[in-house]
Amino acid sequence: MKRFPAATAALRRRLGARVVRTEAAELAEAGLDGSKLSFLPEARIRVRREADVGVVLALANRYRVPVTTRGRGTTLTGSAVPVHGGWVLDLLGLDAIRIDAEAGMAHVQAGANVAAVQRAAEEAGWFYPPDPSSREYCTIGGNIACNAGGMHGGKHGVTRDFVLSLRGYLPTGEAVEWGTPTKKFSAGFNLRDLWIGAEGMLGVVTGAVLKLLPRPAERWTLLTAFRDEAAALRAALALFRARVQPTICEFLDRDSVRCAERATGQAVFPGQPGRAVILLEFAGSRGELREQRPLVRAWAEAHAQAHRAARSRAEAEQLWAVRRKCSGAMFELGDAKLNEDVVVPMRSYLALARFLVRLRRESGLSIPTFGHLADGNLHVNIMYHQAVARERRAAERAVQRLMREVVALGGAISGEHGIGLAKTPFLRLQHSPAQIRAMQAVKRALDPAGILNPGKLFSVFEVWKHPRAAVRFPWDHK
Amino acid sequence: MKRFPAATAALRRRLGARVVRTEAAELAEAGLDGSKLSFLPEARIRVRREADVGVVLALANRYRVPVTTRGRGTTLTGSAVPVHGGWVLDLLGLDAIRIDAEAGMAHVQAGANVAAVQRAAEEAGWFYPPDPSSREYCTIGGNIACNAGGMHGGKHGVTRDFVLSLRGYLPTGEAVEWGTPTKKFSAGFNLRDLWIGAEGMLGVVTGAVLKLLPRPAERWTLLTAFRDEAAALRAALALFRARVQPTICEFLDRDSVRCAERATGQAVFPGQPGRAVILLEFAGSRGELREQRPLVRAWAEAHAQAHRAARSRAEAEQLWAVRRKCSGAMFELGDAKLNEDVVVPMRSYLALARFLVRLRRESGLSIPTFGHLADGNLHVNIMYHQAVARERRAAERAVQRLMREVVALGGAISGEHGIGLAKTPFLRLQHSPAQIRAMQAVKRALDPAGILNPGKLFSVFEVWKHPRAAVRFPWDHK
Repeated sequence: MKRFPAATAALRRRLGARVVRTEAAELAEAGLDGSKLSFLPEARIRVRREADVGVVLALANRYRVPVTTRGRGTTLTGSAVPVHGGWVLDLLGLDAIRIDAEAGMAHVQAGANVAAVQRAAEEAGWFYPPDPSSREYCTIGGNIACNAGGMHGGKHGVTRDFVLSLRGYLPTGEAVEWGTPTKKFSAGFNLRDLWIGAEGMLGVVTGAVLKLLPRPAERWTLLTAFRDEAAALRAALALFRARVQPTICEFLDRDSVRCAERATGQAVFPGQPGRAVILLEFAGSRGELREQRPLVRAWAEAHAQAHRAARSRAEAEQLWAVRRKCSGAMFELGDAKLNEDVVVPMRSYLALARFLVRLRRESGLSIPTFGHLADGNLHVNIMYHQAVARERRAAERAVQRLMREVVALGGAISGEHGIGLAKTPFLRLQHSPAQIRAMQAVKRALDPAGILNPGKLFSVFEVWKHPRAAVRFPWDHK
Repeated sequence: MKRFPAATAALRRRLGARVVRTEAAELAEAGLDGSKLSFLPEARIRVRREADVGVVLALANRYRVPVTTRGRGTTLTGSAVPVHGGWVLDLLGLDAIRIDAEAGMAHVQAGANVAAVQRAAEEAGWFYPPDPSSREYCTIGGNIACNAGGMHGGKHGVTRDFVLSLRGYLPTGEAVEWGTPTKKFSAGFNLRDLWIGAEGMLGVVTGAVLKLLPRPAERWTLLTAFRDEAAALRAALALFRARVQPTICEFLDRDSVRCAERATGQAVFPGQPGRAVILLEFAGSRGELREQRPLVRAWAEAHAQAHRAARSRAEAEQLWAVRRKCSGAMFELGDAKLNEDVVVPMRSYLALARFLVRLRRESGLSIPTFGHLADGNLHVNIMYHQAVARERRAAERAVQRLMREVVALGGAISGEHGIGLAKTPFLRLQHSPAQIRAMQAVKRALDPAGILNPGKLFSVFEVWKHPRAAVRFPWDHK
């Protein structure tokens, strides 16, 4: 039941059998991503040179072969699985990184690992802020595809805010460059940014130039505890109102904290278990931090039930334990999770918290929630047991209600994961028919044969009705 | 010779004669922008409500009426003149500004004045950095249309970096919203950023939500002088290599400084006339500036022939005089100017300076150059006398050579002005045929009837062959 044997044979003649792989193990690995959905491709193309991508796309366009581009495949949305078969274009081999220490820019290939870029920048005295939790595994290309964010989004922005230029290939196989390695560019339509977040559906990115920030001289970490979610959110709003911008401002609700406390066997604040928590990090020059610390301490005294600052790197690591543990520890509440990375405007924080109280009560499910308060990007985790039909149905209803509520509150159904397959049922809550038609017109204009990542974004895929592979990835939360 | 009398009559019936203006004075004013090119429209639509824009576009789309959207029309590229006639959509009436002081965001309508947005932000303790030199006149909508920059581009970025969401209308008249008033959004193709810099050719922006930064507590200004351009550029590179990021880093070559000195009748540094100059501004907290000042002073001691810091707001204003004067003072060198806002990467600064020496010698023209060193955006001003045929031809040849050189150096033909009409002869130096075809495909997809700002970007318009109106605008440099 191979649909494109002639195309695959032609491609192998062009690029060789070391690049064009069809062994069963290669295909199985290439057909699976962090969503644990699995669809087999007919070939996995392990690209070795950027120009290979042009060859692949020119042939794919001629033979109408679906092409799904991937890096490490850490995505949670299924955007990297070849749901229509065809070829998987694997860019992990394109992993060059070069730091321009004078200009403060990183020249990278799409398959470069995000943490490796961060470390290379840091060694040169610079800082690359976007930091998805999978950063030790995921690639810059994947981060560009879903406009990945992370904990620094509130103060420093997301991937989009750091991309100066892109190079890659149109679905026709033609090489293109969008932008220049400069901080200003205003010459023609902005296809650079149109490609960012397009999940590999409008073109294939092979390289990028990223903007860097000067590396902060110091960091200061403070953990704060609050009676309940509303108190924590009100306190955060008071901090923002004072125009204090932590570089990181992580919120954990009481359910998330309790999971982490049970997993570690100790209370985050001894004697005060199960508090809602905000973990703050401030980064900057010595002088800046010297000014901020008393302001932040006064804020914590006024609003928090307890607070604790790290006096060393080791103590900071201890404070981070609760945040690192919570996501994996949640699986005591169910063996399946709908992890939604919704965003709401600050004015809607308290309304969302009230809604989540109702949702928990009415669904009967545990819905631990944590996330990035400086940008309103909250990870709402709807936990259920796959084998229990009642819980499955309750989870499906809960996610539908959540998405409607988020849009009604003026927010976004995804802040940093993207749509892929998993969020397709909600795209039309976010976007009007005119908006969807405009996106589809752009898709047809740039990819008339429809070869790039077909089946994503626009076609509804109810992920909760599909089996998930029983695998463990190295980036899965422990 | 009106081509669309029925459409204009229908529009007037819908919106009334106060909105749909056809008086000669109205049309003349609406037909002219900062480029001083002039083309008469058949109607000027003084929009009063955002929904009016939908009505205009639905009718224009049905009757195939060209629509050129404008704010104040300060653009230097001719992007706001109705080169194909039709209707001018004037958004100056949409000028609401609301600051969300908690979230650090400005909710604005497209016709809001940029300086007014900055002042409203400042009053609320926030800061909106993009600052084109026309900011007291130009509008946010115009800034979005050309992705305007200004002096803060190097450290803080350009308009694109501050736009969180846009609302407006497709050429069909359908209302759309791209993004949410949040710092993260990853849900569907990024048409927000595709609209930014699209010069009103893909849709009409009626409102935006802008990100703000906390207002810096203090500013510190330092003026430095150098023997020549190369010395100044090398010094700047040394500063950047040390990862010191001034909020403003303005460079003036010796020709620019001499013009300003003759206009003011005094040397910038007494006894050392005609030096190349770098004007630096640092902004931040008291503690940050306290740390930066000695570093910057040591740098100036090591590299500059002279330097002077402002000890007060009034002294800072004095230091700024040379920068403010230079652009207008250049007209002593010619009565016409090709003002090109090219950008080159840092690694090409010295190569560009050497090229400009050759270009001056070979063209026989004065080419004073100043600009924003932290982002490589240099304003190269080719001065000539319109009545002198030899100079006109030399200027045309010089601008062609400049643009080829900039692209060869890895740079951009426009950093913040956009293409409009004036830069159309150079678009194909910047973009390959495949890139241009992709842009044109996007244009056809979103505006199949081709009504939005026709004649711009893709059709070559040799601005130096067209007469300019003998008018003075309030934003013209004195």
